[in-house]
Amino acid sequence: MSYSIKELLEKQPVGDSVEVNGWVKTFRSNRFIALNDGSTIHNLQCVVDFENFDEALLKKISTGAALKITGELVESQGRGQSVEIQATDVFVHGTADPETYPIQPKKHSLEFLREKAHLRVRTNTFAAVMRVRSALSFAVHQYFQQNGFYYMHAPIITGSDAEGAGEMFRVTTLDAQKPPVDEAGAVDYSEDFFGKETNLTVSGQLEAETYAMGLGKVYTFGPTFRAENSNTSRHLAEFWMIEPEMAFFDLDANMDLAEDFIKNIIQYVLENCKDDLEFLENRLLDEEKSKPQAERSEMALLEKLKFVVDNNFKRVSYTEAIEILKNSKPNKKKKFQFPIEEWGADLQSEHERFLVEKHFKCPVILFDYPANIKAFYMRLNEDGKTVRAMDVLFPGIGEIVGGSQREERLDVLQQKIKELDIDEKELWWYLDLRKFGTAVHSGFGLGFERMVQFATGMGNIRDVIPYPRTPQNAEF
Amino acid sequence: MSYSIKELLEKQPVGDSVEVNGWVKTFRSNRFIALNDGSTIHNLQCVVDFENFDEALLKKISTGAALKITGELVESQGRGQSVEIQATDVFVHGTADPETYPIQPKKHSLEFLREKAHLRVRTNTFAAVMRVRSALSFAVHQYFQQNGFYYMHAPIITGSDAEGAGEMFRVTTLDAQKPPVDEAGAVDYSEDFFGKETNLTVSGQLEAETYAMGLGKVYTFGPTFRAENSNTSRHLAEFWMIEPEMAFFDLDANMDLAEDFIKNIIQYVLENCKDDLEFLENRLLDEEKSKPQAERSEMALLEKLKFVVDNNFKRVSYTEAIEILKNSKPNKKKKFQFPIEEWGADLQSEHERFLVEKHFKCPVILFDYPANIKAFYMRLNEDGKTVRAMDVLFPGIGEIVGGSQREERLDVLQQKIKELDIDEKELWWYLDLRKFGTAVHSGFGLGFERMVQFATGMGNIRDVIPYPRTPQNAEF
Repeated sequence: MSYSIKELLEKQPVGDSVEVNGWVKTFRSNRFIALNDGSTIHNLQCVVDFENFDEALLKKISTGAALKITGELVESQGRGQSVEIQATDVFVHGTADPETYPIQPKKHSLEFLREKAHLRVRTNTFAAVMRVRSALSFAVHQYFQQNGFYYMHAPIITGSDAEGAGEMFRVTTLDAQKPPVDEAGAVDYSEDFFGKETNLTVSGQLEAETYAMGLGKVYTFGPTFRAENSNTSRHLAEFWMIEPEMAFFDLDANMDLAEDFIKNIIQYVLENCKDDLEFLENRLLDEEKSKPQAERSEMALLEKLKFVVDNNFKRVSYTEAIEILKNSKPNKKKKFQFPIEEWGADLQSEHERFLVEKHFKCPVILFDYPANIKAFYMRLNEDGKTVRAMDVLFPGIGEIVGGSQREERLDVLQQKIKELDIDEKELWWYLDLRKFGTAVHSGFGLGFERMVQFATGMGNIRDVIPYPRTPQNAEF
Repeated sequence: MSYSIKELLEKQPVGDSVEVNGWVKTFRSNRFIALNDGSTIHNLQCVVDFENFDEALLKKISTGAALKITGELVESQGRGQSVEIQATDVFVHGTADPETYPIQPKKHSLEFLREKAHLRVRTNTFAAVMRVRSALSFAVHQYFQQNGFYYMHAPIITGSDAEGAGEMFRVTTLDAQKPPVDEAGAVDYSEDFFGKETNLTVSGQLEAETYAMGLGKVYTFGPTFRAENSNTSRHLAEFWMIEPEMAFFDLDANMDLAEDFIKNIIQYVLENCKDDLEFLENRLLDEEKSKPQAERSEMALLEKLKFVVDNNFKRVSYTEAIEILKNSKPNKKKKFQFPIEEWGADLQSEHERFLVEKHFKCPVILFDYPANIKAFYMRLNEDGKTVRAMDVLFPGIGEIVGGSQREERLDVLQQKIKELDIDEKELWWYLDLRKFGTAVHSGFGLGFERMVQFATGMGNIRDVIPYPRTPQNAEF
């Protein structure tokens, strides 16, 4: 019977004749094949009695070759595995010339593997990361579906440029060299595919709001885009975002949901990706050995994930946070690059990390930010100067969730749009939500890759998505 | 306690004081509010004793207004519902002026509602369609996750233009009016965001293959794009596609998977969307009353879905299909727009529908197509003229799945690429898969919106996605 290696190691049908397919990880002593098929981090040991096999066949077996192996599953005599296959037949699907195959059984740098993005998933590290990514994705869907949310596919190509979340990519079919022009000499977008200028979405939030005001609780999970020239380990031009939006939720309910959601999806991977997380934890411990003690993580990967699941997130108003930061040692000793002098300052990564990593030592939810450092759609508080915004801050990652209660009052929203000089006509449909059956509602956005980074301990965001898109890079 | 209407109707905590939020569907006799919060197709009846309420408040209650209603849940005296709320308090979140609110309690045409895409989800029809869409999405993920597949996010922006599945949208940040040009006067894409020309993906298949050759079984579920000027009820410029890809699967295993997958996700909505499907079935029956008998569906919606789940798909080779078509009545009577004269003809929708709807009267899987009407990556059969392709054909929809066993032999693939004049350099990474550990593998693509159309009975693809993108249309 044919099995995946994961199934075989779980079921252990000792004595059965079995068949497995996979790729050779290593081939030792012309006898021991470590075979992996991607279903699990664990290899299956397949023993070939070289005396009984054709030498020409054995020569084809090297790291990366694809094989079908048939034989009896027996208890293993060796260490490191409980069962192994005593091979009676080996079929070579395809070889991998050791002279040219780049993925050899040795340590490759992450930078080197980025150049081989089509092959890097064949390494233990990337296979583990991508299995965790897959499990986290499913955890997201399962959480929302079990909690009465409907999945909504927000549009990717948008004719609306009022989202204001960042620089956009233009989507066009016009002739690049000689676009049609109007009488004034400007590009004539009426001749473009959609009859107007269109861009890639930076957020599905505004459209998600339209659906929350009909279906009650919805979430998006789709790609979003930023045409920003940020070449950092935290930014991608194309990334996946999760944006729940809930009618009749105020900011407190929104914070409750964000915390419960994050804990739940991390709990899911703790339960379902134990082997991969253990591998990734050891990988990190290994990596950190070369660092000075002070720069090493205080917690190992699994401990860190359990800590998030088991502890309440600390909720702190922006105003309280400013007081803490103003009176903090690094501020007094002028260690912050951006010293905190007064209320109204925009918090930088250094401040967020101080709060999370040094002061509270747990995930923090900051709320009620100054209106003028936040987006136009956030609900104004009675004080007239703060809005019902919230950010969830994580150790090592910084902001992982940003959300708010939305401004549901037509007049307040119109006034804000006017102040910011946004064209009201661009948002006619968004304003309609406040004209017809408006209600308290809230939502947040979670950058999925940041969550995958947190769950896997990978330092560079380029290493948690199959084909990263960054400035000057759209290979494959 | 606060409930969603779905929860309340399921649990029926008669005698409890409850609180619900929602939007007014109708308000009859100044007394009976039918409230809906999007959680279910069913409304909750809320009874206000108008004698005890302020007249000014009652005047604010009209179709579309958002309310919070508090009161005791009691058994209903009226027909059509088992429980109702005896309201003690009504809070108006927001009104909906009957003079201007477009979604009134009467029949609106689907065309009219497309213009109000931000409000149409507040109608019973669109709320039901979008809940079914959400459930189908989850069914897709659940099926693959339970069957050992890993979810893979294929890139949306692609630097590869060799996919060959259709016309592409360009993605750019270059100045539209005066793009930089090189010495030869051509647009200088080295100055574009990614340092090269980039487009929106038409398929994640090639990248999914790279992942299948590491993780074994993977699937994508993401947006794909076609810049084709097709203004039909079956085409979108932006649509969601599901593409599983499996190492060590031949075409037979691929067909088995496609059939099992489709049956499973339809079974999921039959079990989880009963109320919405019944509503949609009645909607269709109603719609068909105005059609002549001959044009009405032979099966009602639920019967049609059950039929697909309960019956084997008929597997027929292209060659057999051509024989059937050649000898068919419509062919002999010259009723086909494209008569079938000989082997090699590309099948049109009329032929597919004849096979499915008239000849076999069940879903059909056609396989082993002529090589020259199929894509370059499909595996050539020993006959040298057919390839291991398969299409799943559905009644009313036509092709719902297209797939194949992939050409895993380097030399055969290189020869094919040469014949088609594709630049081999564009596909270096795809060819690498055949150089290193190549193996039999297969996959297919399912256009998600076509499946939603089939499951909901909606005739126009624009009505099964929140914000449809078609030529000349990218509103919202």
